[in-house]
Amino acid sequence: MSKSTLKPTLRKNFAENVRSFRTQLGISQEGLAELAGFHRTYVSQVERCVANVTIDNIEKLAHALNIRPAALLELPTIRD
Amino acid sequence: MSKSTLKPTLRKNFAENVRSFRTQLGISQEGLAELAGFHRTYVSQVERCVANVTIDNIEKLAHALNIRPAALLELPTIRD
Repeated sequence: MSKSTLKPTLRKNFAENVRSFRTQLGISQEGLAELAGFHRTYVSQVERCVANVTIDNIEKLAHALNIRPAALLELPTIRD
Repeated sequence: MSKSTLKPTLRKNFAENVRSFRTQLGISQEGLAELAGFHRTYVSQVERCVANVTIDNIEKLAHALNIRPAALLELPTIRD
């Protein structure tokens, strides 16, 4: 069995999805951080792919954005 | 804006999905851990909801299970 050789891209998809759903709601990074119960700079770290987000925090972000958590891991689509 | 009050359930869905896809492939927890490049007990911790899995590790597990990462966060379905 071979070890996993993988170029991490999921953080990037996640970051784009968070930004896209957030801007659709018309809220700031700080506003989303507060809604989800995070430090005000956390969403900025997520959207810059700096944070290695945990599943508990994915759940909180999805809850704050009012979407299914799985939607945040899908390939980003161009949204109007 | 109210802080997020949320009963964490995503870990449970994720654990059930990992177990379900893993058993469909007919591989052990240790076998999946090795495929994904983890310590041999890590998948056991995931399936018992002990590990607060990061997005990078979700990507590695999905890659090892050969499925879309988002599929691991969907509501578990009863699979034959």
